[in-house]
Amino acid sequence: MLRIPNKLSRNETINTGFGAKSLQTDTRIFDKNGKPNIQKKGLAFFERYSVYHSIVELSWTKFYLILFFFYFIVNLIFACIYFSLGTESLNTNYKTINLWDFFIECYFFSSQTLTTVGYGHLSPNNFWASLIASIEAIIGVLGLAVATSLLYSKFIRPKSFIKFSNNILITPHKENNALMFRMAPFKNTQLSESEVFLSMVLKVEENGIFVNKYFRLDTEISKISSFILSWTVVHPINENSPIFGFTKEDLINSKMELIIYLKSFDDKYGNNVVKNHSYISDDLVWGAKFKPMFMADESNNITVLDFDLLNDYDEISF
Amino acid sequence: MLRIPNKLSRNETINTGFGAKSLQTDTRIFDKNGKPNIQKKGLAFFERYSVYHSIVELSWTKFYLILFFFYFIVNLIFACIYFSLGTESLNTNYKTINLWDFFIECYFFSSQTLTTVGYGHLSPNNFWASLIASIEAIIGVLGLAVATSLLYSKFIRPKSFIKFSNNILITPHKENNALMFRMAPFKNTQLSESEVFLSMVLKVEENGIFVNKYFRLDTEISKISSFILSWTVVHPINENSPIFGFTKEDLINSKMELIIYLKSFDDKYGNNVVKNHSYISDDLVWGAKFKPMFMADESNNITVLDFDLLNDYDEISF
Amino acid sequence: MLRIPNKLSRNETINTGFGAKSLQTDTRIFDKNGKPNIQKKGLAFFERYSVYHSIVELSWTKFYLILFFFYFIVNLIFACIYFSLGTESLNTNYKTINLWDFFIECYFFSSQTLTTVGYGHLSPNNFWASLIASIEAIIGVLGLAVATSLLYSKFIRPKSFIKFSNNILITPHKENNALMFRMAPFKNTQLSESEVFLSMVLKVEENGIFVNKYFRLDTEISKISSFILSWTVVHPINENSPIFGFTKEDLINSKMELIIYLKSFDDKYGNNVVKNHSYISDDLVWGAKFKPMFMADESNNITVLDFDLLNDYDEISF
Amino acid sequence: MLRIPNKLSRNETINTGFGAKSLQTDTRIFDKNGKPNIQKKGLAFFERYSVYHSIVELSWTKFYLILFFFYFIVNLIFACIYFSLGTESLNTNYKTINLWDFFIECYFFSSQTLTTVGYGHLSPNNFWASLIASIEAIIGVLGLAVATSLLYSKFIRPKSFIKFSNNILITPHKENNALMFRMAPFKNTQLSESEVFLSMVLKVEENGIFVNKYFRLDTEISKISSFILSWTVVHPINENSPIFGFTKEDLINSKMELIIYLKSFDDKYGNNVVKNHSYISDDLVWGAKFKPMFMADESNNITVLDFDLLNDYDEISF
Repeated sequence: MLRIPNKLSRNETINTGFGAKSLQTDTRIFDKNGKPNIQKKGLAFFERYSVYHSIVELSWTKFYLILFFFYFIVNLIFACIYFSLGTESLNTNYKTINLWDFFIECYFFSSQTLTTVGYGHLSPNNFWASLIASIEAIIGVLGLAVATSLLYSKFIRPKSFIKFSNNILITPHKENNALMFRMAPFKNTQLSESEVFLSMVLKVEENGIFVNKYFRLDTEISKISSFILSWTVVHPINENSPIFGFTKEDLINSKMELIIYLKSFDDKYGNNVVKNHSYISDDLVWGAKFKPMFMADESNNITVLDFDLLNDYDEISF
Repeated sequence: MLRIPNKLSRNETINTGFGAKSLQTDTRIFDKNGKPNIQKKGLAFFERYSVYHSIVELSWTKFYLILFFFYFIVNLIFACIYFSLGTESLNTNYKTINLWDFFIECYFFSSQTLTTVGYGHLSPNNFWASLIASIEAIIGVLGLAVATSLLYSKFIRPKSFIKFSNNILITPHKENNALMFRMAPFKNTQLSESEVFLSMVLKVEENGIFVNKYFRLDTEISKISSFILSWTVVHPINENSPIFGFTKEDLINSKMELIIYLKSFDDKYGNNVVKNHSYISDDLVWGAKFKPMFMADESNNITVLDFDLLNDYDEISF
Repeated sequence: MLRIPNKLSRNETINTGFGAKSLQTDTRIFDKNGKPNIQKKGLAFFERYSVYHSIVELSWTKFYLILFFFYFIVNLIFACIYFSLGTESLNTNYKTINLWDFFIECYFFSSQTLTTVGYGHLSPNNFWASLIASIEAIIGVLGLAVATSLLYSKFIRPKSFIKFSNNILITPHKENNALMFRMAPFKNTQLSESEVFLSMVLKVEENGIFVNKYFRLDTEISKISSFILSWTVVHPINENSPIFGFTKEDLINSKMELIIYLKSFDDKYGNNVVKNHSYISDDLVWGAKFKPMFMADESNNITVLDFDLLNDYDEISF
Repeated sequence: MLRIPNKLSRNETINTGFGAKSLQTDTRIFDKNGKPNIQKKGLAFFERYSVYHSIVELSWTKFYLILFFFYFIVNLIFACIYFSLGTESLNTNYKTINLWDFFIECYFFSSQTLTTVGYGHLSPNNFWASLIASIEAIIGVLGLAVATSLLYSKFIRPKSFIKFSNNILITPHKENNALMFRMAPFKNTQLSESEVFLSMVLKVEENGIFVNKYFRLDTEISKISSFILSWTVVHPINENSPIFGFTKEDLINSKMELIIYLKSFDDKYGNNVVKNHSYISDDLVWGAKFKPMFMADESNNITVLDFDLLNDYDEISF
């Protein structure tokens, strides 16, 4: 039932290497936000997570909660050690002290040492307390170095702020049709040398079984030097396209997934930022064309990019 | 009235994707310094600004003022908390104290805790004051980590120090004319692998309405391995050029905007730096040629690059 | 005995520049983990090691041990200086003190100064002690800056987490054979724009002596846009291959070494990560094909990448 | 007298853009270490230096001296302020104090505040002293943030550790001659994807005056995937070469300068490193060939790269 064009052998299997015969699943490869829909098995615990990658992916709230939790735990551990050294190990303001109050003093002495505040109304009073305090202080100093490293890693992690249209449209284009979607950069970034790569997964019959095959899709323009307005990416459905001659039903039946990989240079990060996105056949609109989303403002001296129009299209007939 | 060459379809619409029919404005796309002259609409507040990008764009003066302001505010908040705990919550040097003096003591105790100075002539005297102080101290420590991250982000943000000539010149070149401008790196940088991309926006009539169209301009040399002297970028106005055959008036009427995108590798940053620049038809000089801006010095053993000559040209007739 | 194909001159000597006649060794160029098996001679000590590279390669355990050792040594040096200034140079809580106890006090005063804790129950009591303490404190502050720099360098050093199959397989492929190996990304990374370069070292007879020669190997697919599943790299052994027509024995006799260089973009690092790997003829399996290592899970809505299957292959006959 | 080949127009003026007619100097463009031999004029002071680039180029000794000097100066300034507030502004251990001793106390109080040690035997005793101390403490904290940023910038600045042969050799090569030089990576780095670009400056007669012209030189191999041994870069002096047919005297008379630009990826920096180098006609050896500088060691299981042999060559006749 599915028509696969002749050029298929030239275009297929772009990212599986040898064959791609194995993947017989109905699921999408990437979720909507470009995160791979993949689970890894057969790995030891420490092989599953990279500390760096896990920290960088944490939300800021969780990150700070973890830091505060660590602060509390380290304080508690050292408080217990000072407590175990006995009441004579710390100078306090008070002559007599009960054990619970002493533990509290130990805890705050610990926190004053760890943060290197060191008011001095609490201070170590013998060799062992001084030694533990000198170790705790250097742990505090290194803890600050670690916290700075983690914080900075999260802060400078290059992120791309791109919004994609909800739909992919099929539009008459030159002699044939074209598949197109639209994207636009939000936030106060300035992207340049943006490059887009499209791949498509199609479920096709091969030797009697249905397998997923990967195709690279050409685009009319695949690289732009300044990505500051909206960009409508156009894949012409001509003889080189794997979906040449497909009807709407063919696309739906083949459980199409369009995978977008976008790379841009962000001059503030001084680095490339990437963005994955994925569309499935539910996102398809047959016979439509995007409305312009940028225009001059009333005063005619600035260009306005209006995100409310990102998803707006006109229906057109073939 | 405007003559658009035949090759137009090959060169046009470099960064708008599909069409570029929408932009009917008289304004320039980039301002003189290469900042896009664009306003974004339809975005929620948090979608409008990236903290990283906003910080990196701040002037150093504003940046430090904001840090000091934060320091003052956080101190004030904690001062209020200590104050609310009552005079017995702090050890002070004085036996009796009035409320205003106590608030002042609270404020300075707070600042001594936040910066982790902790002289100790002021110190927490009960559980709640100790607890608040231990929280303030860790906030101070994390604040230092944040400040270091922000400062470093601003400091290492790759910047390109390039001066552009005020004018673009039209000069006889081989059989035709050429459009040229000049740029030179200032400050003590050493740029390499510099690459330049030119695009031009022209207002052209299409189906009765005037729209802006984008063209890529070829250059004689678009990449140089060491950018240490001045570089005169030359666009030959031959049959491949969108402005082939244009008169001076044609260029003015078409409200030409020349957009320059320059990318270089800076070995000290270890990173690429980019620079946008934009010229409009007011910057155009018809019939002129740049004077050399570098030459041997008197002793003949060093090359002098003279920025006073950056804008100097000789008029020439066609 | 060794048959070298005609195309040899086009493919050879990819990384030795002129000739490659000199290397007459039986050793592999890279070890299994991609570290060069090379020793450098004729360099002064300071030319042998880069501080940055040495720190970045240190294990975290060794790194922290070195930091703690430095902390101890610097404290000890300053303790000796304070001790030599005499007992009247420090304020202590005690009126009379023996020399050993005073040295201990000096040591802890030093550590309280270096970490900037500064409780104050110990404080400098004269000009020279104050001066030394003021120098020690700034050394402590700069030490924190250094520690943060070192820690961060180690933390953000881009690493690629890639597992390679134990074996390289020779499989019938189209009209000829193909050489293939498999690799898959572990940990929670997301690699894109992965590019692979293969080179092969063969011991060949040239003018009567056996020398190592370098060849570049073509691959069917050398770049993929998303490297999230396994990737089987295929080198077709056709007329362009240096090992075209080789038997299993030829490959063993020529002491083949396959050197793999893999480059990927890691969007969390915002940077390229590279991985070297090396196979020798012992890793060769003649007549085999990898089993699929990813498939849909039972629920059919997620793809499972199973590392237990990384090395699994089916034997096949030619 | 100088013979310039016909292909000149294709190869010339690689990095001057339009013309290159102006440079009539006898000096080399780059010094031996690849630093441009150029002076910039016509710039305001702040346009001459980038803080970042200046810091990164400073030696570590100068860098630390500057930091210590700043520490001293800031302490001195704040000491003067506290001194001007009068003796009652500080708590000291002593009841009576002379002015010089008080100034010393002010200085050390300042340093204890700036480094946030804050022992507390000296502490602010009134509103103004407390206020100044709270400002000094935050300056100390931000100073640490600045110092960390500067230190880290210097530390991670990507550097390439490459040694070049002292000489460039002219050797018979295929039917013609070839120009070659050798380079090798020292220190414990591992470079990959190294790419070399050669340009040559020749003094040629043009319309009666001698001017410098730039030529790009082709190399047999211009990119290698792993740069771990020595690399002999070979420019074949064939019809495409600007120095085709030149005698030794021609090369000397034309005041040849060979400019080398080398780019490599360093996986520990996770970044590209670049290296400029320059040879002049004094470095030329006519009729010679490099001796191998790497070979198997005695045990035959490791490759030894011997830097004592970097400059060794055999003389050969044509």
